[in-house]
Amino acid sequence: MNSMDWADLPDLKTPYVLVQKERLLRNIRRGAAIATEAGIRLRPHVKTHKSIELAALQHEHGAEGLTASKPSEAEIFVRAGFKDVLVAYPVIDPERIIPLLRAADCNRASVTFIADSREGLTAVEKAAQAAGRSVPVRIKIDVGLHRCGIAAESPALEGLAEILKRSSALIFDGLVSHAGHAYGRTGRDQIGEVAAEERRLMLLARERLTGLGLPDAKISVGSTPTVFSSETFAGIDEIRPGNYVFLDLTAVRLGIATHDDIALAVVATIVSANEDYYIVDAGSKALTSDLGAHSSGGAGFGLASTFDDRASRLPVVRLSEEHGFVERRGGTLPVGTRMLIYPNHACPVVNLFNRLAVYDPEGEPSLWSVDARGRSV
Amino acid sequence: MNSMDWADLPDLKTPYVLVQKERLLRNIRRGAAIATEAGIRLRPHVKTHKSIELAALQHEHGAEGLTASKPSEAEIFVRAGFKDVLVAYPVIDPERIIPLLRAADCNRASVTFIADSREGLTAVEKAAQAAGRSVPVRIKIDVGLHRCGIAAESPALEGLAEILKRSSALIFDGLVSHAGHAYGRTGRDQIGEVAAEERRLMLLARERLTGLGLPDAKISVGSTPTVFSSETFAGIDEIRPGNYVFLDLTAVRLGIATHDDIALAVVATIVSANEDYYIVDAGSKALTSDLGAHSSGGAGFGLASTFDDRASRLPVVRLSEEHGFVERRGGTLPVGTRMLIYPNHACPVVNLFNRLAVYDPEGEPSLWSVDARGRSV
Repeated sequence: MNSMDWADLPDLKTPYVLVQKERLLRNIRRGAAIATEAGIRLRPHVKTHKSIELAALQHEHGAEGLTASKPSEAEIFVRAGFKDVLVAYPVIDPERIIPLLRAADCNRASVTFIADSREGLTAVEKAAQAAGRSVPVRIKIDVGLHRCGIAAESPALEGLAEILKRSSALIFDGLVSHAGHAYGRTGRDQIGEVAAEERRLMLLARERLTGLGLPDAKISVGSTPTVFSSETFAGIDEIRPGNYVFLDLTAVRLGIATHDDIALAVVATIVSANEDYYIVDAGSKALTSDLGAHSSGGAGFGLASTFDDRASRLPVVRLSEEHGFVERRGGTLPVGTRMLIYPNHACPVVNLFNRLAVYDPEGEPSLWSVDARGRSV
Repeated sequence: MNSMDWADLPDLKTPYVLVQKERLLRNIRRGAAIATEAGIRLRPHVKTHKSIELAALQHEHGAEGLTASKPSEAEIFVRAGFKDVLVAYPVIDPERIIPLLRAADCNRASVTFIADSREGLTAVEKAAQAAGRSVPVRIKIDVGLHRCGIAAESPALEGLAEILKRSSALIFDGLVSHAGHAYGRTGRDQIGEVAAEERRLMLLARERLTGLGLPDAKISVGSTPTVFSSETFAGIDEIRPGNYVFLDLTAVRLGIATHDDIALAVVATIVSANEDYYIVDAGSKALTSDLGAHSSGGAGFGLASTFDDRASRLPVVRLSEEHGFVERRGGTLPVGTRMLIYPNHACPVVNLFNRLAVYDPEGEPSLWSVDARGRSV
């Protein structure tokens, strides 16, 4: 692509988020191909983009269903017509589950919850009873991130199995995991080991639950690094990557992507300069101060390039709220120059913007709404 | 205050931002008292709270005018009736200045811009000409943060003075600085040294500009640490602190506040627990991954307390996007427990929420809108 094509971009005020559509499509196809080859289901996590239009594009390319974190985010997608939503977060408050069940009923959608505790199962059960129907629920297994979930070997699994067996309001719908600790490894081999261990533990948990009298469980796993690095998906039914659509400097650091795969950048303007730094109008309120997913990460808050020379990458070494400090390295770019800044972590960046500017070399530039943004208080 | 009073809180879904009004008022009065005692003007920075209601409270307690970063944020406050707004950011695009000038004219408000380059002055001049009037502009001096601004000793000051003298569209309105590098110091003595050096450089810059034929410049300085630590404000006309209304763990780390001064917390719920961590429903999309202002900071992403025992503070040691990892330290809090999490940096946290829940032991709890949030693309 010729760098002059960028001149077709909408003249938006910086900072804004730019999505390069040809890279986005390549990433979407890469995720879909992994699922197709393995003969499993791709249920992408929408927390990365929160965009109905982008979710629709994933579905055009073979995704089935979707994954959301917050019930309030899930509701946006249910109301937009998506028929099969997994809330991959242990919601423990029935008052958050009931409105989503209502929205699902009105829109003829299926919503599945997860739980890893008696409190979680009880919350889904109460909401199901209030809605006058049964609700599918999956058990979350901790495969090493040591966040939510029950260890595959844990005796606590027995208590949850008992509840699931005796409750007429709960439909046991399988097992979910998230091997987010893969973000602490580097390279496909190391990450592949995390994925292999995840698979081993999930198969073990399924075996235990079958032994406890539950029906044969579907297994849903997913993180972008493990999905890209798994040797095999044998025995697995579903993957739930989110970040794969955009990728970011974390994916490059992990060795699962190159700079040219990153589909999302923050566009900023040089507003000032001193001896050492170009000062751009994107700070922690645009780039976030994330060093990577799950508190992983290296040095710096992003890499900045000009539109004309995307191969030269200058590190963003510090952030204020509205300012980024880009290392000059002897450069002489004038005040007013626009820069593309590739962030460490795409997901929380999108969470700070109302719209995404999508650049398509094959068509018109367009603006996509970040529909499920700001669903808090 | 008895901990039971917290039961009056609105039953909001977590995570939400809680502001303790009695602490807020104490902080507002503390800032106002510093200005009153020094006989100078307090022009608070609204980037911290983005709330019209909170700005009004600052004005009830002696603040005059206000400071904003983005023109789009400034416009919200101008339209809400605030009459004197400083945009303390070097806007270099006339297209961003013109709409704000129009809004100011319609609302009989005064808007002042800053510049630190020929490009910046030219942008304000062009906008002033387009609006058919003259516009006040201040020169930004770099007093050591090494971000925006011109060094007090720099020959470049002469070029800017020339433009200001010859332009009929620009009204020279004084000097501004921000000693944000104070966030890299600890204790009132060290921070006081930064403030003293800031004052020395600002007086020097004024002297140089007077020598270059400009009228005697007003001097505006401001950051919460330096305002709280200055020995003297002699020769200074205005302070522009922002964070002082809430404060946060950074202020505690700097030694300019105690835990009991922090007026803002994120309220989160324990949704899961494992051997080492309580998992709460506030992650980097609620707490931000900021370690402190201007990339300063220590370890951890916040301190969590229960409502019943606010003296026991458990560190938030890791963040996912929607999850926080709170160290259990042998505790036995049940799933469902609500926690108050005091963040490292209050300003970017507010930027993630639509409303603030304000708890007032003297009155009803209320919700304040974060009016100037999300003013990007």
